[in-house]
Amino acid sequence: MTLETVSTSKAHGGTLEVYKHASAATGTEMTFSVFVPPQAQVGEGAKLPMLFYLSGLTCTHANVTDKGEYRRLCAELGLVFVAPDTSPRGEGVADDPAGAYDFGLGAGFYVNATQAPFAAHYRMWDYIAQELPALVAAHFPVDPARMGITGHSMGGHGALTLGLTFPETFKSLSAFAPIVAPGQVPWGHKALGGYLGEDKALWRAHDATALVEDGKRPAGAILIDQGEADSFLAEQLRPHLFAQACEKAGVDLTLRMQPGYDHSYNFISTFMDDHLRWHAERL
Amino acid sequence: MTLETVSTSKAHGGTLEVYKHASAATGTEMTFSVFVPPQAQVGEGAKLPMLFYLSGLTCTHANVTDKGEYRRLCAELGLVFVAPDTSPRGEGVADDPAGAYDFGLGAGFYVNATQAPFAAHYRMWDYIAQELPALVAAHFPVDPARMGITGHSMGGHGALTLGLTFPETFKSLSAFAPIVAPGQVPWGHKALGGYLGEDKALWRAHDATALVEDGKRPAGAILIDQGEADSFLAEQLRPHLFAQACEKAGVDLTLRMQPGYDHSYNFISTFMDDHLRWHAERL
Repeated sequence: MTLETVSTSKAHGGTLEVYKHASAATGTEMTFSVFVPPQAQVGEGAKLPMLFYLSGLTCTHANVTDKGEYRRLCAELGLVFVAPDTSPRGEGVADDPAGAYDFGLGAGFYVNATQAPFAAHYRMWDYIAQELPALVAAHFPVDPARMGITGHSMGGHGALTLGLTFPETFKSLSAFAPIVAPGQVPWGHKALGGYLGEDKALWRAHDATALVEDGKRPAGAILIDQGEADSFLAEQLRPHLFAQACEKAGVDLTLRMQPGYDHSYNFISTFMDDHLRWHAERL
Repeated sequence: MTLETVSTSKAHGGTLEVYKHASAATGTEMTFSVFVPPQAQVGEGAKLPMLFYLSGLTCTHANVTDKGEYRRLCAELGLVFVAPDTSPRGEGVADDPAGAYDFGLGAGFYVNATQAPFAAHYRMWDYIAQELPALVAAHFPVDPARMGITGHSMGGHGALTLGLTFPETFKSLSAFAPIVAPGQVPWGHKALGGYLGEDKALWRAHDATALVEDGKRPAGAILIDQGEADSFLAEQLRPHLFAQACEKAGVDLTLRMQPGYDHSYNFISTFMDDHLRWHAERL
């Protein structure tokens, strides 16, 4: 597993780095950013806790890297922060036939697609669950026993489904304005139908609410922030569906409804500090 | 003076707003962002201190708005933050004949151009010194007696030259990696020659080092941060030319050379908190 350096830049006493690598999971080149805090320089053998941040529809690694405002506090907490892309890209990678923003490129939904022509490369589930944690542990001063996961919108869906399915990999879990019940909302119908086919029983493994109903449990408590002025709240996000499932199952969920906040990085960056502390306290 | 709202979004308890307006100074439509901190909501008559941030070559208002990481601390300090564009834009606005990044669109250099075809619209000096402070004071909960100015690179040049020339308007002054002596560096030769003509005596009013030599004085002390790994340091920025002039003139300058930092927003965002506190303490 070879990493090619795209850029490296000192930030908040640490280093903001961007890498490309040939992904075995997706069969494409994948790009991610990593912030390595100054604590990594203390000793050769430093093993720091780290947080994966999964991005939402239309995003690449760059959106949260530019606008997430996470570096200052990660530098203070000694937390490594890794931001992957949201889909495979490049020559031969299928896209939505109509070029829609909510399916295909930039919209991998963190599943292993089974349907042609997407099955060939859209394997973001394996990429995030297995390949990227191993890659990061091999190349950076990271403790593989102290990894957490968070994400926004479609990336919040990815964080919740991966965190519920692999609690031994992702020891802490949170989300910003996540899609919590894709089986019950239009974005999810389109994506899960397109990637996994129309047998809705197969969708339950990629639906956080269904996963909790079906007995999956996270490593610990879950934090979700949701803006009340988010234009996707009522139709696509519906966090109370997940809250009800968690309450019934005894899963410890803190769902915070934030008055006045929308779906943008103005919302995410406002509550980023709280999420970083949430993970640092648990890792 | 009418403002047209482009966007508004809650952030860190305050509001991030983007506006367009017809500028009398430039004769074009101009765009700027403003962060209004939560302290503005306390009372109808709130009058808060504010900071102008002038951006560098190729930028619009959006670069610092996305990547400057200023909202959290502005919200804490009660500081309004205004980020204007770097040149006039739109139909009929001349650009560099070769489309270069360092002259014309995105590169107004904060002067009133006297040379055709730029003289018609490139009047960023008047826009920042007069029109925008009046506009902001009229439309936002801002105390016009408590305005400061900062900027990056070409914007640092703008902040220093405006701050030195109008200390009664800009009561506090700082810069990130500024062009301090445009009369002595290639970027400045091209821009000042192109906008003001080849009589170098006329350039001195837009050269921070020459302004100090010629007797101009800021309202108070000046803070400059400069990355030592900045690829423009030796040829274009040369902060020690300004430091020497300040020392000779008795101007109180704190010039901090920051090891390892480059010219990017990773550098700016790292030291943004220090600059915000610098201004808040003086306003």
